[in-house]
Amino acid sequence: MNKFKIVLSYDGTRFGGWQVQPNSISIQALVEEALSVVLKTKTPLVGSGRTDAGVHALAQTAHFSTSNSFDLCKLQHSLNGILPDDIRVCCIEPVPDHFHARYSASSKIYRYHLRLSKNVDPFKRSYHLPVHFPLSLPLLKEAATYFIGTHDFTSFANQGDQGAAAHNPIRTITRLDIVDEEGGIYLEFEGNGFLYKMVRNITGTLLDICRGKIELSRLPEIFAAKDRSKAPPAAPPHALFLAKVNYNISAIEQDKQDQIKIDKMILSCAS
Amino acid sequence: MNKFKIVLSYDGTRFGGWQVQPNSISIQALVEEALSVVLKTKTPLVGSGRTDAGVHALAQTAHFSTSNSFDLCKLQHSLNGILPDDIRVCCIEPVPDHFHARYSASSKIYRYHLRLSKNVDPFKRSYHLPVHFPLSLPLLKEAATYFIGTHDFTSFANQGDQGAAAHNPIRTITRLDIVDEEGGIYLEFEGNGFLYKMVRNITGTLLDICRGKIELSRLPEIFAAKDRSKAPPAAPPHALFLAKVNYNISAIEQDKQDQIKIDKMILSCAS
Repeated sequence: MNKFKIVLSYDGTRFGGWQVQPNSISIQALVEEALSVVLKTKTPLVGSGRTDAGVHALAQTAHFSTSNSFDLCKLQHSLNGILPDDIRVCCIEPVPDHFHARYSASSKIYRYHLRLSKNVDPFKRSYHLPVHFPLSLPLLKEAATYFIGTHDFTSFANQGDQGAAAHNPIRTITRLDIVDEEGGIYLEFEGNGFLYKMVRNITGTLLDICRGKIELSRLPEIFAAKDRSKAPPAAPPHALFLAKVNYNISAIEQDKQDQIKIDKMILSCAS
Repeated sequence: MNKFKIVLSYDGTRFGGWQVQPNSISIQALVEEALSVVLKTKTPLVGSGRTDAGVHALAQTAHFSTSNSFDLCKLQHSLNGILPDDIRVCCIEPVPDHFHARYSASSKIYRYHLRLSKNVDPFKRSYHLPVHFPLSLPLLKEAATYFIGTHDFTSFANQGDQGAAAHNPIRTITRLDIVDEEGGIYLEFEGNGFLYKMVRNITGTLLDICRGKIELSRLPEIFAAKDRSKAPPAAPPHALFLAKVNYNISAIEQDKQDQIKIDKMILSCAS
């Protein structure tokens, strides 16, 4: 069996989220189905983590294993031919056996887009949250600093299927940047992992602080309560993007991977 | 009666086009309906021209007349509150009585977006045409020059409801620029007016020249035939944007307009 990493970009608008689940279309299910058709055998896909219903990805990562031989470029082309055009395969590459899309990830980057301009843009309406009150950037930046670092994020985590928060609600956010973009800003979160709905819950809290619904000084108390009901509601999903999943590959692993790549590339992309 | 210019931006994906017509939702009908609700009287809207089903607008212009008094900012806000979020009112301003959204226009700018990159972007899939063959920019630029200037565009005009081509098929394209953008290019057409489907028909012809389906040297013969059936099919509508409608206002008219604006602004935007 050979292992491959696949990077996917998708518009989450019409999906029930990444994860296979009953009663809604999941991105994982569609990609697994496409892979199974092309590789002519049932091929399960392991994602770096799930994205919720309505959440988008610029670069979601997953892995799969197969004993079939194939040309990587042709596989990508075939998958994009089968998949609907709101899911695209960005790249596929061989990885060492010990690679795991979820457990090998060193960090994840999420972006939450806020529209601040009164200028209208009907073409981005599905990808940002309009902010209708005067948003103080200094206050937003100050509030953001409370979330950077290692904290117990129980108050900002919904109870997911996996109950991750119950097991270990400690996470590290290494940065929470406020980045200017045309017509608004986005909040860029980078961390070693995020609990269920954590980014949307933090964004909802930051917005409630900025609109004066709760005082900044109450944040330590909300953290300390370790109680989701003490924090404001989540921001909506449609403005959230999983931007990137990072993997640190040590020098030894890199050597191994290079060798694997060389071996496998003989098959691929020669066309 | 006072006259007003309204500038609209819309995502044409789900509409049957600008113009009111049976059996499909038109942008004009929705905006007229919203205006009539807010102004409490039936208020017809005259557009700068129609856009086809599926075609978008960054800035479509229209005019309407009313004897009602209102605050311009509040009117814009109210209309955007009533309209679906794929149609947005960008601005409303008073204009002289002789202003006409269609006949006063000095030029119109259209953009046709082509995706050339193999990099995927599911978020712009509704707004560009992917080009799957190696497109020669020098050939495209050379072919574009054939369309610049004053020509009889009968071979590139469909027979519309108004039969404009039959009356006067002569139009002037002042520029046809090839503009780089992330992941591709767009063709920017500026002209004193465009016949029905003319931009899409020219784009379809340019693409057929670039993919080698017809020879560049055949263009003069296609123009001379004055026969739509001699030119290649139209490019699809979803990658076309009406970008801007320009109006030249002479110095005297500007004076008049400034006075009208001053008079009317007393009512508006004071809030």
